[in-house]
Amino acid sequence: MSGAAPAYSLRELRERYGGEVIGDADLRVSRVATLENAGPDAIAFFANPRYLRHLQTTRAAAVILGPDARDAATVPRIVCENPYAYFARVSALLNPVRGTEPGVHATAQVHPEARVHRGAEVGPFAVIERGAQVGDGAVIGASSYLGEAVRVGEDTRLYAGVTIYARCVIGDRTVIHSGAVIGADGFGIAFDRDRWVKVPQVGAVRIGNDVEIGANTTIDRGAIDDTVIEDGVKLDNQIQIAHNVHVGAHTAIAACTGIAGSVRIGRYCRIGGLVGIAGHVEIADNVEISGHTGVTRSIEQAGAYSGVYPFEPNRAWRQNAAQVRHLAQMAKRIAALEDAIDRLRSES
Amino acid sequence: MSGAAPAYSLRELRERYGGEVIGDADLRVSRVATLENAGPDAIAFFANPRYLRHLQTTRAAAVILGPDARDAATVPRIVCENPYAYFARVSALLNPVRGTEPGVHATAQVHPEARVHRGAEVGPFAVIERGAQVGDGAVIGASSYLGEAVRVGEDTRLYAGVTIYARCVIGDRTVIHSGAVIGADGFGIAFDRDRWVKVPQVGAVRIGNDVEIGANTTIDRGAIDDTVIEDGVKLDNQIQIAHNVHVGAHTAIAACTGIAGSVRIGRYCRIGGLVGIAGHVEIADNVEISGHTGVTRSIEQAGAYSGVYPFEPNRAWRQNAAQVRHLAQMAKRIAALEDAIDRLRSES
Amino acid sequence: MSGAAPAYSLRELRERYGGEVIGDADLRVSRVATLENAGPDAIAFFANPRYLRHLQTTRAAAVILGPDARDAATVPRIVCENPYAYFARVSALLNPVRGTEPGVHATAQVHPEARVHRGAEVGPFAVIERGAQVGDGAVIGASSYLGEAVRVGEDTRLYAGVTIYARCVIGDRTVIHSGAVIGADGFGIAFDRDRWVKVPQVGAVRIGNDVEIGANTTIDRGAIDDTVIEDGVKLDNQIQIAHNVHVGAHTAIAACTGIAGSVRIGRYCRIGGLVGIAGHVEIADNVEISGHTGVTRSIEQAGAYSGVYPFEPNRAWRQNAAQVRHLAQMAKRIAALEDAIDRLRSES
Repeated sequence: MSGAAPAYSLRELRERYGGEVIGDADLRVSRVATLENAGPDAIAFFANPRYLRHLQTTRAAAVILGPDARDAATVPRIVCENPYAYFARVSALLNPVRGTEPGVHATAQVHPEARVHRGAEVGPFAVIERGAQVGDGAVIGASSYLGEAVRVGEDTRLYAGVTIYARCVIGDRTVIHSGAVIGADGFGIAFDRDRWVKVPQVGAVRIGNDVEIGANTTIDRGAIDDTVIEDGVKLDNQIQIAHNVHVGAHTAIAACTGIAGSVRIGRYCRIGGLVGIAGHVEIADNVEISGHTGVTRSIEQAGAYSGVYPFEPNRAWRQNAAQVRHLAQMAKRIAALEDAIDRLRSES
Repeated sequence: MSGAAPAYSLRELRERYGGEVIGDADLRVSRVATLENAGPDAIAFFANPRYLRHLQTTRAAAVILGPDARDAATVPRIVCENPYAYFARVSALLNPVRGTEPGVHATAQVHPEARVHRGAEVGPFAVIERGAQVGDGAVIGASSYLGEAVRVGEDTRLYAGVTIYARCVIGDRTVIHSGAVIGADGFGIAFDRDRWVKVPQVGAVRIGNDVEIGANTTIDRGAIDDTVIEDGVKLDNQIQIAHNVHVGAHTAIAACTGIAGSVRIGRYCRIGGLVGIAGHVEIADNVEISGHTGVTRSIEQAGAYSGVYPFEPNRAWRQNAAQVRHLAQMAKRIAALEDAIDRLRSES
Repeated sequence: MSGAAPAYSLRELRERYGGEVIGDADLRVSRVATLENAGPDAIAFFANPRYLRHLQTTRAAAVILGPDARDAATVPRIVCENPYAYFARVSALLNPVRGTEPGVHATAQVHPEARVHRGAEVGPFAVIERGAQVGDGAVIGASSYLGEAVRVGEDTRLYAGVTIYARCVIGDRTVIHSGAVIGADGFGIAFDRDRWVKVPQVGAVRIGNDVEIGANTTIDRGAIDDTVIEDGVKLDNQIQIAHNVHVGAHTAIAACTGIAGSVRIGRYCRIGGLVGIAGHVEIADNVEISGHTGVTRSIEQAGAYSGVYPFEPNRAWRQNAAQVRHLAQMAKRIAALEDAIDRLRSES
């Protein structure tokens, strides 16, 4: 979210982030924009060929693009290997995050045995229970809740309305958006005769450094051992991570995905939205899973995996989906036909 | 939610909303009920043929129904073109919403540079940051949070525990339910060498008039331009709308659906629950999508679309689902059989 | 969540919960652990054959296991019929839940016409509206909200940030986790000419005894009659239950599942995660539904049901999924081949 926007010349950007400047290096930009909606003080980026026509008509002052596209634009431009990542850095420069304003709001309830670093910011109506610790530069948003013995690292930011249950640990420079619930009880129930018996969830959640957790995402505490989110993991909104899941470093997961208990996900995986992963499954490093896929078995090889029934106009879908129920029978009929053909051939 | 229920005669209802009264027009009703559970002071409606038997045995004082069913009941009744919409209006009349009680609760934290209309109501523990504006007749529920420069229109109602991030704009007469988070950062990350770099999300969210947003729904702010929800859109609970999505006016979306970044949805669409729509897809006006469908390509024609694997008893499903993995091979075997038949025929 | 852990001998456990002790019955355990990570003061359990190797190498002081596995371990052990349920009870004994600390926090806003039992605990920034009732031993977590005339039973626990809309009723010994929203308006809208008309949601939600509701789960109030969750139901996180759903006693539902309006689910059902159940469907008792299944029709027989497209490596999936669109045509081609074979046979 932007504060007052400073301005930088293309030369200054090159000095900070590298790349090659083509055109007027003294040209200054003060904000980012899309190719389509840019005004004359803005810098845009080009990374998706689908928007080539916007590149050619953009009113942006300057554009960031890759070597392949260096001649596809006429405006001043920065050519670099990874335009999207370059743009991310320029945008962060032009849109500095509001800094921490140290101090505890008068209305916040901080237990006398909690330790809040004097460089931390605690918003109105926040509750910090006994034994909790908040590091230097951290921000605890309005109406957030830190249970007993929770630890929040340095420069970590909790937006308004985040809940962290007792004994969970959050690393440094991590961002947690509103409505996220970290450390609620895992869904541990044992069926006994005629009713469910609750299995106490005595583990916690450990979240690493440089993690981002989206709005209304839930991460349950472990049943016995801890649920673990390693460094650099990026979680979108409304993701559910069940007890004792382990997510490897730098894995990114899109919104609405549900991960069942004791799943182990490798490093550098990319998982789409609305994916379901069944309990106890193990997923290797560098696995990519398309949105809406149901993963019911372990994946041992890096690579891309998919599984979603393709959509169709309703009438076609009804006819094709009806045949799904006859697939096993169709396979048998085909085999029988092959036999019949063989016999006819041998007779003729 | 109902307050004290007034009573109206069928004649009065006809004067307000039209339709034809059959039977005693002076009969008064004071509350709505289902056909099945109605008591003698209640008015019910009949719109779904599945409940015909309940129509014939209802103890309701009166019933609202369509022209086709005018003779299917013997109780006093109102015949109209759209019984469900008619019922909605009668129910709103009999169950007036609790009015706004103007004033700011003593515990609320309103920044001195925020502007709250004196006709607005702000509940306990609400936080309203610098530069935010709240219109006449609006209600900001308990423990809700309005970030810097947020604007909330007239007669808009936020229930308890709604979070609106900085600079988002909400129109008039819009309703937002508890736990909804509007304007959290979109999931913008660029992979660079060995880690993800955050792309600042500098757009906002603009929500129109007469919108309804369900509990725990999340709508992310735009990466650069804004995320837009047009007038009259109705969103159920636990929907995820990613950055830069555009939802056209009067579209309705059922619960748990996830819409990825930069999707553009037309006007008057009806989208079922647990639907996933992939990034950058465009959907025309008047499209209907069945629940649980994964939409991976743009839909250019109005109409109904579906895509969900039909469920079956476990054993049958296991046999049929196994064949899904051989579909491409089955298609080849069928083609080979057709060739063989052709050859045999030409030989015989 | 654990407090200070007491210690018990295996003999004491047998006296409380039955079973047979093999080995040193005076051996004392003070905490639970997994087989894999247990230390010498811990008791673990063995129920899943997948972890047999951990059973054989565990450093646990004692293990709980079933009759089949009585000789698969050498450490002191308790043999019983249902090791997981036995373990649940032992864990509850060793990890007593923090007791209720009666009293209303100074910052809580309790309406003078609300009735909070003096044995109940109300946390900071909680809001309790007019006519609400809170029973003996109940805990209302920080920043939770109870609307008008809400009733919360005895020994029921709401964690921080739970929202209950007006007139909903929660039974005894029920647990509701953070971010859950009970009683928001159902998604009732009637289309009229060119816009949606809201159907007032005048029912409420009734939740029984011994229910557990996960973080960020939403249960909507009924349109006319109530939404009902019977005794002993267990709901995981981020579940959506629409208006007028009825969930039978002792049914358990995993995370992210969405249940549309007026669905009726039987008793003792087990429903997986990310399942979608279409409106007005009825499901018998003792039905089990696999994760990710879309249920579009009623299920009248107890048993297990599934429906998810199996996932595959991307290339194979693309080829097979393409054929899904030709299934109806494939069925016709197979029938034509069968006819052709019959004719060829009769000719030869």
